[in-house]
Amino acid sequence: MADVEETIKRIQSQKGVVGVIVMDNAGRAIRSTLDDDQTAQYSALLQTLCERAKGAIRELDSTNDLTFLRLRTKKVSVLTPLLYIL
Amino acid sequence: MADVEETIKRIQSQKGVVGVIVMDNAGRAIRSTLDDDQTAQYSALLQTLCERAKGAIRELDSTNDLTFLRLRTKKVSVLTPLLYIL
Repeated sequence: MADVEETIKRIQSQKGVVGVIVMDNAGRAIRSTLDDDQTAQYSALLQTLCERAKGAIRELDSTNDLTFLRLRTKKVSVLTPLLYIL
Repeated sequence: MADVEETIKRIQSQKGVVGVIVMDNAGRAIRSTLDDDQTAQYSALLQTLCERAKGAIRELDSTNDLTFLRLRTKKVSVLTPLLYIL
C-alpha cells in the first residue's frame, strides 16, 4: 500500500494537479485527495463516462478495451488511466 | 478549404493514423478518410461520447467546456479535438 501512497503523492505534487481519486471497477472511490463532496461528484461522473467509453470501444471491436481516457477542458485536464487490479 | 485538406493529409500521414473524420457540432461527418460504414459508426459513437463528456464537465462547472477528448485502448488511440467554428 505504501507504493500507492507514494504514487498519489508524486502525482499530487505535479504542477496544476487539483486532486487524485483512485476508484475500483464499480466506480467507488477507494482513495481520494479531494473532499467527500467533490470525490462523490467526480467519481460518479467519471464512472458513467468510462462505462460509456468502454461500451463505445467494444461496439467498434469486441476484442478491444479502454485503457486511458483524457478530457481537456477550457480550465482543467482530467486524466483517467484505467488500471485493472486482478 | 485547402488548408483543411492539408491538415487532414498531414494528420493522415502520421505513423499509425487509421483515419480522420471532421464532424460538425451535431455529429454529422463533413469529411472523412474512412469508408462510409466506418465513418457512420465512429461518428455516431464519438458524438454520443462527446455529448456525455460535455454534460459531465458542465455538471462540475457550468462555465467550463470540453475542448479535447482522448481515448486510448489496447489497440488504438482516438483523439477528438473539439473545434468550434463560429
